[in-house]
Amino acid sequence: MNRLLILSSEADKYRALIEIARLPDLTIETDINADVNIALGETRLLKDALAALPALAWVQTTTAGVEALMDSTLRRDYALTNARNVFGQLMNEYIFGYLLAHEKQIFPRFADQQAKCWNGSSTGVLYGKTIGLLGVGSIGSEVARMAKAFDMRVHGYTRSSKDCEYVDQYFHGNDLIAFAKGLDYLVAILPRTNDTNKLINADLLNALPPHALLINVGRGNALDENALLEALNQNKLAGAILDVFEQEPLPSTHPFWTTPNLLMTFHTSAMSFPENITKVFIENYRLFHAGKPLKHLVNFERGY
Amino acid sequence: MNRLLILSSEADKYRALIEIARLPDLTIETDINADVNIALGETRLLKDALAALPALAWVQTTTAGVEALMDSTLRRDYALTNARNVFGQLMNEYIFGYLLAHEKQIFPRFADQQAKCWNGSSTGVLYGKTIGLLGVGSIGSEVARMAKAFDMRVHGYTRSSKDCEYVDQYFHGNDLIAFAKGLDYLVAILPRTNDTNKLINADLLNALPPHALLINVGRGNALDENALLEALNQNKLAGAILDVFEQEPLPSTHPFWTTPNLLMTFHTSAMSFPENITKVFIENYRLFHAGKPLKHLVNFERGY
Repeated sequence: MNRLLILSSEADKYRALIEIARLPDLTIETDINADVNIALGETRLLKDALAALPALAWVQTTTAGVEALMDSTLRRDYALTNARNVFGQLMNEYIFGYLLAHEKQIFPRFADQQAKCWNGSSTGVLYGKTIGLLGVGSIGSEVARMAKAFDMRVHGYTRSSKDCEYVDQYFHGNDLIAFAKGLDYLVAILPRTNDTNKLINADLLNALPPHALLINVGRGNALDENALLEALNQNKLAGAILDVFEQEPLPSTHPFWTTPNLLMTFHTSAMSFPENITKVFIENYRLFHAGKPLKHLVNFERGY
Repeated sequence: MNRLLILSSEADKYRALIEIARLPDLTIETDINADVNIALGETRLLKDALAALPALAWVQTTTAGVEALMDSTLRRDYALTNARNVFGQLMNEYIFGYLLAHEKQIFPRFADQQAKCWNGSSTGVLYGKTIGLLGVGSIGSEVARMAKAFDMRVHGYTRSSKDCEYVDQYFHGNDLIAFAKGLDYLVAILPRTNDTNKLINADLLNALPPHALLINVGRGNALDENALLEALNQNKLAGAILDVFEQEPLPSTHPFWTTPNLLMTFHTSAMSFPENITKVFIENYRLFHAGKPLKHLVNFERGY
């Protein structure tokens, strides 16, 4: 018999969804308990519980990012799987929603309406434009697919992977500046690792054309926030859309709240909906129960 | 030798683009001239010129809508072709831009930013929702394709056609109310004909669920504007996005300018860019020159 502990602010919802699936040889425990061999939950809650769960064999997170469990002082003697293939859809809706809001001038057109001004001028387009993806994992591949549905050109910057059929041109290693040149939109979808710290710095922002937009939906560590402030204040960039920040919630004293041409959301671009995450858990539980390799295993060395 | 007259506010641009193509046996005339056998242009300008062009054999419009040429008192002794397959991309960007702006709460989130309020609540999604297309011609088929890229369900209401592979369920004839029930979004892409007058009336609006959005990017005649005013003022509908109106430009006294949950644009959702329209003209000119049937022929009886 496998014993599952759910550590989530939405534990009741996860429990109900998992019970409906009637998974074989599984009981769901209510409290932290030495016999638990599986845990499902939010990384911050899991991190605090690890020491009290000696029998733990497998941990499934409800998120894509797992940095809270990467601390080298924490245990790594269990299989860690993250949630993948569930955020691409949400990220696409967010990214293309904001790109289109920019091109279709949805805010300025509403100002025209309020001014009762019939503004018959044309607005911008996505088709034919070049989108650059900083990180082409399971989410980036979905974004690339959608960009193709909008007839865009897709450039991808990755550590080494180059297997996404929707990417027209790949860049690696020292080609970051070459990658940035000529982009209309730069979309960062990077995990928080030591390698991604401040990858979006002044050099990268200066290499972008002045009409370019930056979107960061990965992790806040990837962006040099001061460099972006300077770029936006000096109109070196058309705009930025940020969902993630160095410090979250963003302090009320942070200049981003009032920076021109910066739109922000609140780490809400791709939330973990239990209906979606439970599907990942159930698929992996069936593999676990059958003694087969789990999907979406995290590499502790790499950090994702 | 064929003689082409260009009647457009962007005639110089069209002339330059057509000259680059070096089409065989074609001269471009500057003025209205009895020898002209081909005209390319805007329907309102063409309408006024028809009587002065006795040798006219073929007219290519720069728009999809051709109602200005449908007046039964006007000549119909020429082949009329409209612009198709060039507006779908633009319409998609407009429609999905506004749908996503609604679901991602782009306006409310900006208000949160202005209030320095870190609002971590989730926003809505397109995937799994049902979009209803009122009219599934060349534009509607493109919208259906994009809806599928966003993993939506697609319903289509048409006179009789049912050949779009991306439509999950078709409705015809008296099934308009059945079509409206259960839609999350209703998108009207109808031409102006006698059959489409006030098709979107109080009965249809009342049949939509209260969370539904209406988008009209076809022609203003399809909407009973008073019925929409009542539906929005009584919160029977979540919102409307209108690009076309009974009277354009919309009079400054019209209540739509200040109706709650109504966003408007100014017949700008899919503009005729000469680069796109010229491709249609060139393709058709080659057919015309070869004595072959033209593409996108308008049926004067049907009106599109």
